[in-house]
Amino acid sequence: MKNCIVAQSGGPTVAINASLAGVISGVMDSNQYDVVYGSLNGITGILDHRFLNLTELFQGREEMRKRLIMTPAMYLGSCRYKLPNMEEDFGVYERIFQFFAEKEIEAFFYIGGNDSMDTVVKLAAYAKKVQSPVRVIGIPKTIDNDLCMTDHTPGFGSAAKYVASTFLEIAHDTYIYKVKSVTIVEVMGRDAGWLTAASVLARNEYNTAPHLIYLPERAFDKEEFLADVQELLSRQHNVIVAVSEGIRDKDGRYISASDSAADTFGHSQLSGTGKALESFLNEHLDVKIRSIELNVMQRCASHIASKTDLEEAEQLGRRAVECAAEGQTDIMLSLRRVSSNPYTVVCESVPVCRVANEMKIVPDTFINQRGNGVTEGMVEYLKPLIQGEMPIAYENGLPVYLSVEHLVDRN
Amino acid sequence: MKNCIVAQSGGPTVAINASLAGVISGVMDSNQYDVVYGSLNGITGILDHRFLNLTELFQGREEMRKRLIMTPAMYLGSCRYKLPNMEEDFGVYERIFQFFAEKEIEAFFYIGGNDSMDTVVKLAAYAKKVQSPVRVIGIPKTIDNDLCMTDHTPGFGSAAKYVASTFLEIAHDTYIYKVKSVTIVEVMGRDAGWLTAASVLARNEYNTAPHLIYLPERAFDKEEFLADVQELLSRQHNVIVAVSEGIRDKDGRYISASDSAADTFGHSQLSGTGKALESFLNEHLDVKIRSIELNVMQRCASHIASKTDLEEAEQLGRRAVECAAEGQTDIMLSLRRVSSNPYTVVCESVPVCRVANEMKIVPDTFINQRGNGVTEGMVEYLKPLIQGEMPIAYENGLPVYLSVEHLVDRN
Repeated sequence: MKNCIVAQSGGPTVAINASLAGVISGVMDSNQYDVVYGSLNGITGILDHRFLNLTELFQGREEMRKRLIMTPAMYLGSCRYKLPNMEEDFGVYERIFQFFAEKEIEAFFYIGGNDSMDTVVKLAAYAKKVQSPVRVIGIPKTIDNDLCMTDHTPGFGSAAKYVASTFLEIAHDTYIYKVKSVTIVEVMGRDAGWLTAASVLARNEYNTAPHLIYLPERAFDKEEFLADVQELLSRQHNVIVAVSEGIRDKDGRYISASDSAADTFGHSQLSGTGKALESFLNEHLDVKIRSIELNVMQRCASHIASKTDLEEAEQLGRRAVECAAEGQTDIMLSLRRVSSNPYTVVCESVPVCRVANEMKIVPDTFINQRGNGVTEGMVEYLKPLIQGEMPIAYENGLPVYLSVEHLVDRN
Repeated sequence: MKNCIVAQSGGPTVAINASLAGVISGVMDSNQYDVVYGSLNGITGILDHRFLNLTELFQGREEMRKRLIMTPAMYLGSCRYKLPNMEEDFGVYERIFQFFAEKEIEAFFYIGGNDSMDTVVKLAAYAKKVQSPVRVIGIPKTIDNDLCMTDHTPGFGSAAKYVASTFLEIAHDTYIYKVKSVTIVEVMGRDAGWLTAASVLARNEYNTAPHLIYLPERAFDKEEFLADVQELLSRQHNVIVAVSEGIRDKDGRYISASDSAADTFGHSQLSGTGKALESFLNEHLDVKIRSIELNVMQRCASHIASKTDLEEAEQLGRRAVECAAEGQTDIMLSLRRVSSNPYTVVCESVPVCRVANEMKIVPDTFINQRGNGVTEGMVEYLKPLIQGEMPIAYENGLPVYLSVEHLVDRN
């Protein structure tokens, strides 16, 4: 027997199950491995011996595999477990590789973000140290698009499509009243503004919103923000603002509740960035102010996934299996853009140590000078990533996803 | 010449443009009226002489009319203008009917909710008083589903479909971690709990969420809520709660920020019902608590509209034109359910005075005894309303809606 195992980790995205489906079909089609196991709740499933036999589950069930591609969040569950350094706890590594030996596992695929790539680095280092034949390979995902060494990350395109579509729908919702208003929409991305920037794609021949876009890459100046809004209100009725949850002032302090009066009384948990700005504008403007948080919907709205995104995610999963079979290890699969027009990317593998614990923020050239908008270069970069729609199956009026009954834990 | 005019009013829904499209095609197909005008921003467009010639715009443009059906919010814009009583301001009525006379208008269609039906009642009364031949007809809409004399309101089914789908996606997002958590999702509906109740449709063979549903029809008891959550947490990891923005305690006080500690310091605007409950649970439980506000997305997410809803909305628009041509006035179009299985409804007209300023709340028989869930009867009632999907056109990765450039007001 020669088996492999796959796990998912970090925050959910719409595309992470597509990569899982890619690994499953990669294994089945290549005949390089007998069984592909799925560790439940990331690496912790290996430590607790909680896993599924994915070959058994998916063999001959192509419809089920296709449904997996469309299912939001993680079929195998996630974890936020950080593997200790080898020097701190050698035992945990021994337990993991003991499990690999027992199950005759020769490849481990970890689908995740930054932290998950740290796990890949550590496991690969251990494998090297003990001369284990187990290949350790990372497959990227994150809606934040903040991984280095890849043009973009699976999961980002779908989140970007949700964000852009929702801004367009919010614009329609906003334009109906002939009263002055400011609508602040808070988008995820604590350190990198990629997803907030994607709101720009909502603009079209009749919709100029979002009118202001603030990313965490630039220090946020409340007075400049107020001036920007006032200037726009002097010319138009409705101002729609895209703001990253992670914006900070020039001293690096988050512009969240901590910056609003409420915090003085210790209730900062009541309020996010959008709410804080709503409160700030309410103090200075006599127009209708509303804030909207896109919240987890931006990372789980599979019914409006980007086809490009899901296809790439699946492709990376398939390619990971090939890489392992070829003997590669200590790598992360990555996407290199050959051209934006026509959009062409190639799958590559990159040293995972150059990804783990690093972060790719939005470059200066993609942000306008005043720091309240993005450039044409950003639009060019983003556009291909949201293209295409998946055929969504509906039953009884709801999108049909794959059952995650095994995750619905009863104590 | 014999013309008619249509306007939209109140809060946006996904279906209100479908009713507009129904009026337009009703006029064109029946040849009962030469021109159908569209008053901009509700009745205020008539007072300010701001209107569109919809016949000119849509004649021979079936693709454009179909796109209108799919476009969220209001193509003609909205207003929150309450018509004064005749005794208070006779002049405003004279101006409106003067406009009707000038434009040879013999029928006025008002698509809206409760307040709009008040306008219909008043204009019909004036028409009767001055023996004007102008027919005044209401076409219902509201995501709240709180209009009397109709089985349900256009706009509700699509909002319900969004709410149910989003709860299912949030459930997937929630189940991935093996840590105890409570997720509170706040749904619109200040006085009626229909839309919050629709979250129940997210349940399927693997998803038991939402686990608790609180409607404004029942007094909300925080201690009972805490007990309900604790009881569930003793048996399962994740608890997902659907809560109406309008829940109140037994003394009628809203459970919003006003009920949380923050309010003591005068910052109630920072927080909604979900945030207030998040804050309350955080004081009593040592698990992860998150609150999510579905916000305006639940009333503008046309990309996941209910086909049943949009078709009914359009049908009511068409039927309204027939009613006017038949000489009916002082009525609202309504839907009467003949059967739930198979789902059959008929269009009727009802006296609008029995709708205006009245409200249909959720009956006791649709709420469970403890007031933390809904009954099978409610599920039966809701299910047909979210059925079916519209073919959505996408361009450049985004849903294509009809341009509302005429609403994007520049000062």
